[in-house]
Amino acid sequence: MPKIERFEINDRLSRIVVHNGTAYLSGLTADDKNTDTSNQTKQILKNADALLRSVGADRSKLLFAQIWLRDVKDFDAMNKAWIKWLDGAEPPARATVGANFALHEILVEIQLTAAI
Amino acid sequence: MPKIERFEINDRLSRIVVHNGTAYLSGLTADDKNTDTSNQTKQILKNADALLRSVGADRSKLLFAQIWLRDVKDFDAMNKAWIKWLDGAEPPARATVGANFALHEILVEIQLTAAI
Amino acid sequence: MPKIERFEINDRLSRIVVHNGTAYLSGLTADDKNTDTSNQTKQILKNADALLRSVGADRSKLLFAQIWLRDVKDFDAMNKAWIKWLDGAEPPARATVGANFALHEILVEIQLTAAI
Repeated sequence: MPKIERFEINDRLSRIVVHNGTAYLSGLTADDKNTDTSNQTKQILKNADALLRSVGADRSKLLFAQIWLRDVKDFDAMNKAWIKWLDGAEPPARATVGANFALHEILVEIQLTAAI
Repeated sequence: MPKIERFEINDRLSRIVVHNGTAYLSGLTADDKNTDTSNQTKQILKNADALLRSVGADRSKLLFAQIWLRDVKDFDAMNKAWIKWLDGAEPPARATVGANFALHEILVEIQLTAAI
Repeated sequence: MPKIERFEINDRLSRIVVHNGTAYLSGLTADDKNTDTSNQTKQILKNADALLRSVGADRSKLLFAQIWLRDVKDFDAMNKAWIKWLDGAEPPARATVGANFALHEILVEIQLTAAI
């Protein structure tokens, strides 16, 4: 079987797992959560860039994105940051729904699956 | 690496992405949302048929389905439409939870992953 | 194309689907739901062990875990049971959000993807 590679491991999750040409990222939230959905989205996607790069992928290799919003009224704000980040790259399949988060100040969480 | 193919692309998502024998569909919602969960589910699955067919898959090739319901009390109504749609095909693995959606009239959203 | 294998099939889902070296499990909930999040998590993960074993995988082969909690305040209780279960195995990528469930007594649901 193809080997499993894990990166940025803590006691409960690996931030990236690579297997059989596919990279599974953990759900990402913003480092600085004292800001709005637009800015949280920008932070998440900047961090995603670094994580994807660390396994030889990038935003042009995305297969699927799952996005959770605390308040679905922030859909347009998230989307604007998302589209700007894509910068013309062909986008992944995607699903966006409202959800609650473990920390009250989290407004958006994004989980990416990419090809490597 | 296996190539990535994307279909029905807009500025924020591709409705289908194919990579390494797996097709990732975006979360689908009904075209006509002025109807109940049963009818929204039927519309979604009819659209899923067309999308799956466009990449050479069909409902018998499903690997995983994620289903979100605005009101979990509609679980049985969704399920009945789902089972009828399967029409005896072996079903995918599945998870169904309640969630909020960006548009108030969305009652159900379904995201499919299939083999091609 | 690689064949699709399905196990523990009912009319609406298969509890495991295997394709191309990847096993997709359905979202699992506890058998005995008259107990707290910690104990529901333990039951789910014990059942996951048996399901993974049935297709030749185990908790060391996990690629991705999605966890839904009825009450995100139970994050630490779920996490403690999760970490204990891992028993030192390298963890999968993971995302955890709050959600509603079809049955009121469900407090946690876990969906796993594994390599086989």
